[in-house]
Amino acid sequence: MLPERLSRLIHLLQRLPGVGEKTAQRYALYLVGEAGALGEDLGRELLEIGALVRPCERCGNLAELDDQHRAVCAICRDRRRDPSLLCVVARVQDLLAIERSGSMRGRYFVLGRLLSPLDGVGPDELPLEQLRTKIAQEKISEVIVATPPSVDGEATALLLARELGALGVRVTRIASGVPHGGDLEFADQITLGRAISGRRAIDFRR
Amino acid sequence: MLPERLSRLIHLLQRLPGVGEKTAQRYALYLVGEAGALGEDLGRELLEIGALVRPCERCGNLAELDDQHRAVCAICRDRRRDPSLLCVVARVQDLLAIERSGSMRGRYFVLGRLLSPLDGVGPDELPLEQLRTKIAQEKISEVIVATPPSVDGEATALLLARELGALGVRVTRIASGVPHGGDLEFADQITLGRAISGRRAIDFRR
Repeated sequence: MLPERLSRLIHLLQRLPGVGEKTAQRYALYLVGEAGALGEDLGRELLEIGALVRPCERCGNLAELDDQHRAVCAICRDRRRDPSLLCVVARVQDLLAIERSGSMRGRYFVLGRLLSPLDGVGPDELPLEQLRTKIAQEKISEVIVATPPSVDGEATALLLARELGALGVRVTRIASGVPHGGDLEFADQITLGRAISGRRAIDFRR
Repeated sequence: MLPERLSRLIHLLQRLPGVGEKTAQRYALYLVGEAGALGEDLGRELLEIGALVRPCERCGNLAELDDQHRAVCAICRDRRRDPSLLCVVARVQDLLAIERSGSMRGRYFVLGRLLSPLDGVGPDELPLEQLRTKIAQEKISEVIVATPPSVDGEATALLLARELGALGVRVTRIASGVPHGGDLEFADQITLGRAISGRRAIDFRR
């Protein structure tokens, strides 16, 4: 039905996260059809970007290689950041989401993965040593653990609290509860339980 | 926050149909991160495919260029197809959907667009002359109009019936009604109206 090269393109596009056969076909037909130069622009960008973008050597965020062939991201280069505050996230996406919220004035550390005994990811698979070195060298005073409030995320948070707490650093966890605009009626039991146990005094004097 | 090259990739990916900022970011981070060689494979494919795949010169389906630098699609090359039956569709996607159903034994003609007075697409913007020539040369006896059952699709079907009917060819329209597995309760009024007006005698002898 379709030219073989087009099927190949569809198969490649299907490997993108969350893309099924129909979506891949839609992208492919658009790229060879109406999209004009988009296909070529995208192709060129994809071929070049691999040699230009690397994980930041300090935090794991993505960074462009500089003239000395070193990768240090914009956040690690930003001197206005509080150097004593470190936010640990699982993925670069999570870092970007927190940055968008504008509520983090420190720097980050990207774990790359979560503790997941069922998938065979134990403490040895996490970059704990790198994190310990960073905390000691950069004189971090507080580590905010912003792993997701899932089973793996909570297990990772507990591990970090135990391993890093021993270094004398303060280890905190982001709050979990009913999201902004969320309906209590439709919140699950665990979320509601966390919302109750994580309650805080209302400061009415402000 | 993100390297400029990565932002550029995200912007390009955002131009794919139905892809917003978050999805584009997800694709981009995957492509420069865990995806391994996928980014490069995809990049190479996108750069090469433009020179290899063209609209079929007979029907508008996509086809790979052959040694003589001609583009004739697999369906037009298939001699087992009924040459007297022509199915007119708006887009290549629609052709593929009908092919998947396995219910079309003739060939196709891809219009590329629908009549849409509001968007300034009049009869002159449709490849009517090409369609007329094809019908005459290939001795087509029936044209099945498989444009979508939307305002533009119906307007196009009416136009084709008028223009092609004058050539003495039989012009038919695909049925519109309650879809398989569909719930009458949730079907809209127009669909139910069409289901009633398009009713057929039940042949209980088969």
